[in-house]
Amino acid sequence: MSSLYVPPPACLQKPLMVPHRHMFGPGPSNVPPRILEAGAKPVIGHMHPEIFEIMNDIKSGIQYMFQTHNPVTLAVSGTGHAAMECAIFNAVEAGESVLTEVNGIWGERAADMAERIGARVNTVVAPPGGFLTNAEIEQALVKHRPVVFFLAHGESSTGVLRPLAGIGQLCHKYNCLFLVDSVASVGGAPLHMDRQEIDILYTGSQKVLNAPPGTAPISFSERACQKIFNRKTKPVSFNLDLNCLANYWGCDGKPSRVYHHTGPVTAFYSLRESLAVLTEEGLEESWERHHKVAEYFHAELENMGLKLFVKEKKARLPTVTTIVAPHGYDWKEITRYIMKTHNLEISGGLGPSVGLVLRVGLMGCNSTKAKVDMVLAALKDALKNCHENKL
Amino acid sequence: MSSLYVPPPACLQKPLMVPHRHMFGPGPSNVPPRILEAGAKPVIGHMHPEIFEIMNDIKSGIQYMFQTHNPVTLAVSGTGHAAMECAIFNAVEAGESVLTEVNGIWGERAADMAERIGARVNTVVAPPGGFLTNAEIEQALVKHRPVVFFLAHGESSTGVLRPLAGIGQLCHKYNCLFLVDSVASVGGAPLHMDRQEIDILYTGSQKVLNAPPGTAPISFSERACQKIFNRKTKPVSFNLDLNCLANYWGCDGKPSRVYHHTGPVTAFYSLRESLAVLTEEGLEESWERHHKVAEYFHAELENMGLKLFVKEKKARLPTVTTIVAPHGYDWKEITRYIMKTHNLEISGGLGPSVGLVLRVGLMGCNSTKAKVDMVLAALKDALKNCHENKL
Repeated sequence: MSSLYVPPPACLQKPLMVPHRHMFGPGPSNVPPRILEAGAKPVIGHMHPEIFEIMNDIKSGIQYMFQTHNPVTLAVSGTGHAAMECAIFNAVEAGESVLTEVNGIWGERAADMAERIGARVNTVVAPPGGFLTNAEIEQALVKHRPVVFFLAHGESSTGVLRPLAGIGQLCHKYNCLFLVDSVASVGGAPLHMDRQEIDILYTGSQKVLNAPPGTAPISFSERACQKIFNRKTKPVSFNLDLNCLANYWGCDGKPSRVYHHTGPVTAFYSLRESLAVLTEEGLEESWERHHKVAEYFHAELENMGLKLFVKEKKARLPTVTTIVAPHGYDWKEITRYIMKTHNLEISGGLGPSVGLVLRVGLMGCNSTKAKVDMVLAALKDALKNCHENKL
Repeated sequence: MSSLYVPPPACLQKPLMVPHRHMFGPGPSNVPPRILEAGAKPVIGHMHPEIFEIMNDIKSGIQYMFQTHNPVTLAVSGTGHAAMECAIFNAVEAGESVLTEVNGIWGERAADMAERIGARVNTVVAPPGGFLTNAEIEQALVKHRPVVFFLAHGESSTGVLRPLAGIGQLCHKYNCLFLVDSVASVGGAPLHMDRQEIDILYTGSQKVLNAPPGTAPISFSERACQKIFNRKTKPVSFNLDLNCLANYWGCDGKPSRVYHHTGPVTAFYSLRESLAVLTEEGLEESWERHHKVAEYFHAELENMGLKLFVKEKKARLPTVTTIVAPHGYDWKEITRYIMKTHNLEISGGLGPSVGLVLRVGLMGCNSTKAKVDMVLAALKDALKNCHENKL
């Protein structure tokens, strides 16, 4: 054998070991056995009639979850970032103006994505933990005349649930599409795509839905489709081209579906099951449960003497809570201690909140008082046992 | 409730039903219970040390399967098309020249992808069922001076296994990267990334590996990295940017991994398990098994009076066999009859082979004489019972 030969790796001769863990970070969240088992059903073809039926069920489930009648509603074969690129790649052409609200990392990522495809990008920046007023947004719309305005409904890096009232209408006044990231919020906080005049809405599978990461629901309004299906240039990605995806998902009214890519069929099974779970509980009931559990959690945190990062009560994301990093402690020691001692993930900040906060995600099946009590006990234990600098 | 309200969909109140089926089309193939069960293990974080270890195992498994020592070896969070775009988006900048060999649909798709990002694209077209000589390729390299030359090692639409000898060397003579699609071939036919001087090689999880579709192994040579990490412009996709992916996969030598996207952790479990299965059998043993089973299959087909679409014996793909559509029959009736009567998928042609062939995929665990006998029995039954036009 020449030295070019690569021998069989010894590491693969050991069995796969995966720990059980309480997933109370900003995502992925725990996946209930029912959803994991759905994903272990046998693989069928990506063009078989049975998978088309499952995809139709998913479509109906997303329309319910998003509260939209949009026919162009589907799941992207990828994680949330793929859906984000699917939105931007299709809705924006090179040279067009794009505006994003930055109040955490997601507005920055959207800006980066739009820049990469040659858009003229402007951002309006809100302080971390806050958000812009509608008047500030209108000013920016007038100034930059974007074709797309992006914001994150639930900003998981800062813990902000951003009010949406009136923004869709503002965008349409200025002939702009309204693009909303609801990865951290949908299913856990009220959201009405059609009523709120959102043109493109997407989320991930691994948050409130409690499915494994790997698929990403997305929906496009008629106004968005008008722009997208009349583009002058092709989107940069074949894999994410909405013309192809809408056909594969049976959204384009054409009699037959043409092979585009090989859909991740087992991930579709899990996604369908997660939407079935949401349907069984009821969307409003899920919103209400997340709201109540978060209220309880936030009150108990304040009783412990901890401070919430988001000052305005109504703007606190019920799914991901940001706690001001306790004074005198090293936040990394706290998260490490809790993982080691309680087998429980909570996380530090991200982007503008790094070093400033602890983040706790209680999403979908994890949004219960019992899980809150577990987190509170772990936090109390950590504050007692981690090194405190009493200077 | 206003008419905008979307009620819970009734279809999601029915249980998920997935049939068991013999998956003998060009992919996805059947997934053994061991690999399905791996994918149903609990979700952990995409940045937990345990998932990094699993990703390291996957990396070693891909290096073995590809026969490469490349440190920049990883799995893309998407299906084969995502890997294809990952290769092209990173290796090519707008305005650069790209050359693709077209002898089925894959060379066309690669050309389409490169055009979308503003490359100057040329194709060299071989007759369906054939491939170009090295002299023809050299001529095209001289004429078009591409920065990347693409070909499909196993062209699943026509059933061709394309010899690779000398092409990497030719590309390097003209300062061009050699990009190879091995979605349908790797693990089922000899392939030596390093020895054959391939610069970028990718595949999918759902063929010989017998994992569910949704992840896509890819590897980059030092020469490819040299070009990619010294680009003048950013790749169009943040999600597929190799700078970020190489860091997330611990391929860049940096001490810590930064959050990029949420990896599909359960799909990684399945992929790892599929690579463990390949390692247990041995790569050469897998090549040999696919070769012998295909020889047996092809001989028996000819004994039945059927003709193989690829004339040259050595150029027949051992994983996907193209059979000339039997004269006087409607190929659609045959595939439909076999699905209905035998619960077994074989498929028709794709792209240039539509209407001309039947395609049978026997990949990974499906590459056995017993499965061949099942297909032969189904084909004999179909030819007896389908409507024959004896004009």
